[in-house]
Amino acid sequence: MSHKIITISREFGSGGRDIGELVAKKLNVSCYDKELIKEVAKESGYSLDYIEENENATSSLLYNIATTGGYGVSVYNQDHMSPVDQVYIMQSKIIAELANRESCVIVGRCADYILREKEECLHVLIHADMEHKKERAIHSYGVSAKDAEKIIHKRNKARASHYKYYTGLTWGSVQNYHISLNSGLLGISDCVEIIANAAIKKLGNFD
Amino acid sequence: MSHKIITISREFGSGGRDIGELVAKKLNVSCYDKELIKEVAKESGYSLDYIEENENATSSLLYNIATTGGYGVSVYNQDHMSPVDQVYIMQSKIIAELANRESCVIVGRCADYILREKEECLHVLIHADMEHKKERAIHSYGVSAKDAEKIIHKRNKARASHYKYYTGLTWGSVQNYHISLNSGLLGISDCVEIIANAAIKKLGNFD
Repeated sequence: MSHKIITISREFGSGGRDIGELVAKKLNVSCYDKELIKEVAKESGYSLDYIEENENATSSLLYNIATTGGYGVSVYNQDHMSPVDQVYIMQSKIIAELANRESCVIVGRCADYILREKEECLHVLIHADMEHKKERAIHSYGVSAKDAEKIIHKRNKARASHYKYYTGLTWGSVQNYHISLNSGLLGISDCVEIIANAAIKKLGNFD
Repeated sequence: MSHKIITISREFGSGGRDIGELVAKKLNVSCYDKELIKEVAKESGYSLDYIEENENATSSLLYNIATTGGYGVSVYNQDHMSPVDQVYIMQSKIIAELANRESCVIVGRCADYILREKEECLHVLIHADMEHKKERAIHSYGVSAKDAEKIIHKRNKARASHYKYYTGLTWGSVQNYHISLNSGLLGISDCVEIIANAAIKKLGNFD
């Protein structure tokens, strides 16, 4: 039986991670988010903090020019890869293995792109307006009210650059997803319900 | 009882009109699309063809400068409005009246913007990749295969300009909608199911 995967791309502050966890719970499957970092740590020997720091980065331009003679990931020689590229490649392999092993929800980490050829997928984008993102960042992630807007911009800019660097596509462009949901207008629980229902409709029961 | 409205904005070739009609049928309400043009014709005395031709247009720049001293809609003096602006204003009034009269589905015509302050609404965007839009334009709308891509670009550009002119917003930007669906990836019947379920979840039963 082919496994069913829901990928969730999410703006920082949109509640996408919580939505992913609740969808997974509703469908009785696992949700992979931070868990992926642990898997990469196990395989690579890098520390959790180091991976977390590097996973939304792009390779240093100078490092790339020096070691690969250009931009982008040199998949041919892992010894010459920057640590950021190594984390990306390892994470991609783990995501592909996961999708072959079990039905699950995967949050972030370019999973929509990595699994773009896989049929049994529902790719979802969660976005929200700035007011809702600020509210969530302040009350759920403990960001200071003064800095919230700046931090949200910075984090989402980093996600966009990372996605662009590794996929060549524009992060958050609706064309990459089956469904895009405005969690600010819909609220978390409606998003969960819509995604779970859509996944069952498109992919069949998860049991 | 407050009436429940689903607005559907749609790229040309995405099947949004068909989806709107099927959602309305499923929820046992009316779908307003071309019907709105008839209402405008009745109120304005313009012919159906004339309204259809003008409703996705923007006012002529020269007409605006000459009559209102600038850009945009002069709502203060309808006598000095361009026919295109008159059609827009009339259509907006009819959409607002409709929303006060009955639960329904409204396709296109900036209805998401016109009803932006109304609580009991679900605003949906239907989009698709170029291949699917071409297929639909050729097989369902009888557009020639040779010209399909050019016509799709032209029609969608006109919709975007019209929307920008009257709302100041970017047409197709996910922030304007609760839900954005990729009809090319999901197919028409999944889109219908997702919208109908989401509308009931958010707004309650339509009966």
